[in-house]
Amino acid sequence: MKTYAYAARSATTPLAPFSFERRSPGTQDVAIDILYCGVCHSDLHTTRGEWPGTIYPCVPGHEIVGRVSAVGAGVTKVKVGDLVGVGCMVDSCRNCPSCGEGLEQYCEHGFTATYNGPVYGGGENTYGGYSTAIVVTEHFVLRINHGEQDLAGVAPLLCAGITTWSPLRHWKVGPGSKVGVVGIGGLGHMGIKLAHALGAHVVAFTTSPSKRDDARALGADEVVVSKNADEMAAHAGSFDFILNTVAAPHDLDAFVTLLRRDGTLTLVGVPAEPHPSPSVGNLIFGRRRIAGSLIGGIAETQEMLDFCAEKGITADIEMIPMQAIEDAYGRMLKSDVKYRFVIDMQTLKDA
Amino acid sequence: MKTYAYAARSATTPLAPFSFERRSPGTQDVAIDILYCGVCHSDLHTTRGEWPGTIYPCVPGHEIVGRVSAVGAGVTKVKVGDLVGVGCMVDSCRNCPSCGEGLEQYCEHGFTATYNGPVYGGGENTYGGYSTAIVVTEHFVLRINHGEQDLAGVAPLLCAGITTWSPLRHWKVGPGSKVGVVGIGGLGHMGIKLAHALGAHVVAFTTSPSKRDDARALGADEVVVSKNADEMAAHAGSFDFILNTVAAPHDLDAFVTLLRRDGTLTLVGVPAEPHPSPSVGNLIFGRRRIAGSLIGGIAETQEMLDFCAEKGITADIEMIPMQAIEDAYGRMLKSDVKYRFVIDMQTLKDA
Repeated sequence: MKTYAYAARSATTPLAPFSFERRSPGTQDVAIDILYCGVCHSDLHTTRGEWPGTIYPCVPGHEIVGRVSAVGAGVTKVKVGDLVGVGCMVDSCRNCPSCGEGLEQYCEHGFTATYNGPVYGGGENTYGGYSTAIVVTEHFVLRINHGEQDLAGVAPLLCAGITTWSPLRHWKVGPGSKVGVVGIGGLGHMGIKLAHALGAHVVAFTTSPSKRDDARALGADEVVVSKNADEMAAHAGSFDFILNTVAAPHDLDAFVTLLRRDGTLTLVGVPAEPHPSPSVGNLIFGRRRIAGSLIGGIAETQEMLDFCAEKGITADIEMIPMQAIEDAYGRMLKSDVKYRFVIDMQTLKDA
Repeated sequence: MKTYAYAARSATTPLAPFSFERRSPGTQDVAIDILYCGVCHSDLHTTRGEWPGTIYPCVPGHEIVGRVSAVGAGVTKVKVGDLVGVGCMVDSCRNCPSCGEGLEQYCEHGFTATYNGPVYGGGENTYGGYSTAIVVTEHFVLRINHGEQDLAGVAPLLCAGITTWSPLRHWKVGPGSKVGVVGIGGLGHMGIKLAHALGAHVVAFTTSPSKRDDARALGADEVVVSKNADEMAAHAGSFDFILNTVAAPHDLDAFVTLLRRDGTLTLVGVPAEPHPSPSVGNLIFGRRRIAGSLIGGIAETQEMLDFCAEKGITADIEMIPMQAIEDAYGRMLKSDVKYRFVIDMQTLKDA
C-alpha cells in the first residue's frame, strides 16, 4: 500500500515529504485511512535525535485517528468504515505477565512503538501517523465512539490522554481525592480535565500566573502559582496524589512536601538533565512516594476513550496542515499552543 | 524520681554521668526500671550535634527494655513487675488522623521523641534510655513476651526492628515475595530476619564479600555483592520490594532497576548529603516507586514484638557497660559491630 508521509531524513533536516509501502493487511490486521494525527513532544525529540536510537528516515506520530479501510479475515474488533485510533504502541510480545494483565506498555520484551520501533521479533523500523494510512494488528486498534465533529480533538487522547488517565486510575483518583496536576501543557491540560471528570478536587500548578483562568476553564478547582511560596505552603501535606507532567528539571521537593501521608508524586516526563535529587527526609516523614508511569495499556486506553466519549471530553487543539509541522515544533518549544497541535491529514492527501 | 544517666553536655564532649529527676507517675503513667538500652546511630548523630536541634544536656537511647516499677491509678495495660519496652516515641497528639490509625510516628503535630523531643504541648526536653529509669504514658509502653534470657536482644527491636518491620508489612511482604535488603547493619540484619520469618525469598545486598556467610546465617536466601555488576544484573527487574537501610549517599538506580513492575524501593535512612538523583526513566519504565518509611506505630510495634516472641527472634547484639559508650560509638562508625550494641544498665546502677 503506497503511503504518503512527512519524514525526517536526519537529525538536522526539517521534516519533508516521503513515500513508502505499508504492508498489505494480514489476517489480524486493520488498515486505517488516517484523518488526524496529534503532535507530541516525543515526535520532536525523536526526529531531531535528542533521544538515543532514532532510525532515519523517521515518520513520527502516535496520536492517530482514522477510519478503517480494510480488515484481515480474522478481524472481529472493528469493520470497514469504523472510526478507530492508534496510540504509542502497535505490538508487544502478548505473552509476558504485563501483556497478560493488559499492560502492554510494560511488556517485558519491550513493546513495538508506533514509530521508530522495530516490529516485535523483527528488525524493521516502524513509521507513524504523519502519514496517509497505517496497518496495525487489531489488538492495538482502539474503537472511537465520539462524534465526527470531535475527531481531531480525540487524537491527543491516544497519548496525552492515556498518559494522564493511567496514573490517575492506577492511584485510584476519584471523588474525595485531592489531586494536583503540575504543568498545563498537552499532558497537563488532559490531566486536569480527566481528574475533574473523575470527581476529584483538582489543583493545577503552573509557573505562569497568566494561566490561572485557563486552568480553571479546564476544570481546576484551584490554581497555584508554584513560584509563590505562600501559595504552595497553604497546601502543605494535603494532596493524595500529584501528577507531574513537567519534563524540565525542577525541584521535586516543592511538590513532595505537599503530599499527605502515603501520597504519591507520579512523574510522566523524562528530563534531559536530572532533577535535583529529592530529599529522602521528605519521603520518610510521611511515607510518601515518588513514582513513574508510562502511557497506558490497550484495555485502559479503550476505557479512557469510552469515558471521554460519554463525558464529551476531547483535547483542546489547534489544527495545522502537514506542511506547517516545523513551525508547530518551533511554537511547541515556546509552549505557544493551547494545548496540542493536530495535523489535518487531508492536507497531505491534497498535496 | 532521682535518675542516673549518661549525657552529652555539648556536641564536642564525650558522654558522661548525669543525674536528673523523672516526673512521678501520673494517672496514666508507667514507671520503668531500665534493664537494657540499645545503641542506635541516631544516638550518636544527636549527641554529637550532627543533626540540627540537639538540646543539651542530651540523654540518648530509644531501644529500651525494662521492668515496671510503678503504675498510675488509671493504667490497665501493664502492672508492676511486667517486662516492657519503649521505642522512639513517648507521646503524640493522639487526635489527628495518623494517630487515630495507630500511626503515631506520622502524627500531624509531630510525635514526642523519647529523647531530645519536647513533651507534646510543652517545651520541656525529654531524656532517653541511657538512664536507670523512665516514666512513660501507658499508650507508648509495649508489652514484652520474650523470656528473661532474651531481653538484651529484644531492646533493638524497639527501633531497628520496627523500622524494618513497618515497611515490610506496609508493602505486604510475605510468602511469594522476592525481597531485597540493602546493608547488613543494625537495621539490615533485622530486615533480613523479619523478611525471612514473614516467608519471603530474601536477597541481602552488601558491599562486603566477607558478609556473605553472615547474611545467610541471618536468613538470606541469596547474597549479592552490590559492587559486582554481573551479580546485580542477574536480578534485574525481579524484586517486589527492596528495603534500603543504607544512609550513606549511593546510587539508587542500581536498586531501582532490580525492581519488577510496580515494585517499591523504600528508604529508611536519611543521608547527610543527597544520593545522586535517581533516574526518572527507570521509574517510568516499570511504574516503579521510591518511598520512605519512618519507624512504626505503637500497634504495629506490639505486633512485631509478639511475632518475634512467637518466632524466637531477637537482634544479634554485643553487650557493653554504660562506661564503654564512646568506644562503642567509635566502633559503630567503622561498622565494627554484629549487629547492635546494647547497654547493660546494671553497670550504671552499680557505678
